[in-house]
Amino acid sequence: MAEEGVKVHGFWISPYSTRVEIALKMKGVKYEYVEEDLQNKSSELLQYNHVHKKVPVLIHNGKAIAESKIILEYIDETWKNNPIMPQDPHEKAMARFWAKFIDDEFLQPLRKALFFGEMEVEKAIEETKVNLKILEKVLEGKNFFGGERIGLVDIVATSIAYWVPLFEKAVEKKMLTEEFPKLCNWKNKYVNHNIIKEALPPKDKSIAYFRARFAKFRTSS
Amino acid sequence: MAEEGVKVHGFWISPYSTRVEIALKMKGVKYEYVEEDLQNKSSELLQYNHVHKKVPVLIHNGKAIAESKIILEYIDETWKNNPIMPQDPHEKAMARFWAKFIDDEFLQPLRKALFFGEMEVEKAIEETKVNLKILEKVLEGKNFFGGERIGLVDIVATSIAYWVPLFEKAVEKKMLTEEFPKLCNWKNKYVNHNIIKEALPPKDKSIAYFRARFAKFRTSS
Repeated sequence: MAEEGVKVHGFWISPYSTRVEIALKMKGVKYEYVEEDLQNKSSELLQYNHVHKKVPVLIHNGKAIAESKIILEYIDETWKNNPIMPQDPHEKAMARFWAKFIDDEFLQPLRKALFFGEMEVEKAIEETKVNLKILEKVLEGKNFFGGERIGLVDIVATSIAYWVPLFEKAVEKKMLTEEFPKLCNWKNKYVNHNIIKEALPPKDKSIAYFRARFAKFRTSS
Repeated sequence: MAEEGVKVHGFWISPYSTRVEIALKMKGVKYEYVEEDLQNKSSELLQYNHVHKKVPVLIHNGKAIAESKIILEYIDETWKNNPIMPQDPHEKAMARFWAKFIDDEFLQPLRKALFFGEMEVEKAIEETKVNLKILEKVLEGKNFFGGERIGLVDIVATSIAYWVPLFEKAVEKKMLTEEFPKLCNWKNKYVNHNIIKEALPPKDKSIAYFRARFAKFRTSS
């Protein structure tokens, strides 16, 4: 039974809804999970996120919040244990900066290549490697983007730790190579963390999903 | 003389750098303003915002912060008087949601039509009106998006109060009509507020700039 009326509307392989589940698990908040059929969204989702009609949506005490990074900050402000955000205003700004960078810059080439066919795979890999170089530097002297523990940027970067390898399998090309030792080290620590492991979708099903998405686009283009 | 080593790198008509100046003025923080030549950016800007190389950048005590909405939250967390953010976590999440909506959804059609020629003006106006309808509802029962006083969404919506009328003048079409009484009322209150008026760029120069940008694109396409 979910505590305090907490509900998440998500989609099993969405990196955005997985973030929300990770944050709730880190806080030890029990929640009800509602899997959405993205072809036939629930009336609750359409009502609660009437602007974007997208997962994830968090519902807490009857009020809805949309947009994964906004939900993460809400969770951190509502349940104070195991903080996700740094306390120092400058560190907080930097965490928000890198989280935004991952969503707005890092993920875009891979999304365009894999899901929308708006970019060649080679070009997407090239751009992704430029971004991986930038993020490799951010990890300098740190175990996690959050320092010694998992924070906002790590949770947002689940897209890199879990989804980039799926993309690699789908297109049969490597990106997270030994050129990026800190990111590889981070990725291994991160995906093997107890809470993260529990929140990630099943691997075989994920690989099959990514391969099918990629193949579908290749044959239909 | 700027207090506490506060410096803003901006561009006079950028709605993004104007936001930062508005927030600093609301807090009564004195700052040094550095006008950037966007064709020949200062080495300080390139160094401080090496990822995006864009204005605005706020420098405080030798540390740089980029991205206007992130800077606004930093300012609010650093100087506590005249709060920009609501205190309640759900209200805070909603403020972040609408601020993101204005940047990611609202401004895009107008930017595409006016600055990049990627969209027809008529189509941009149509999409903008759909978004104005959404925002009109958000103002229900309020003087400002922040309630009784100016907050994050109002500052971000300077783009609507000041730049939409510039766009209207450039293309000679109206958008903020009597269909949107609450937005028109808000706009008038907002741009005539003492602090806002002082922070906005000179009107005639702004109109000339917008007209020139629009004409340049029209003749070169």
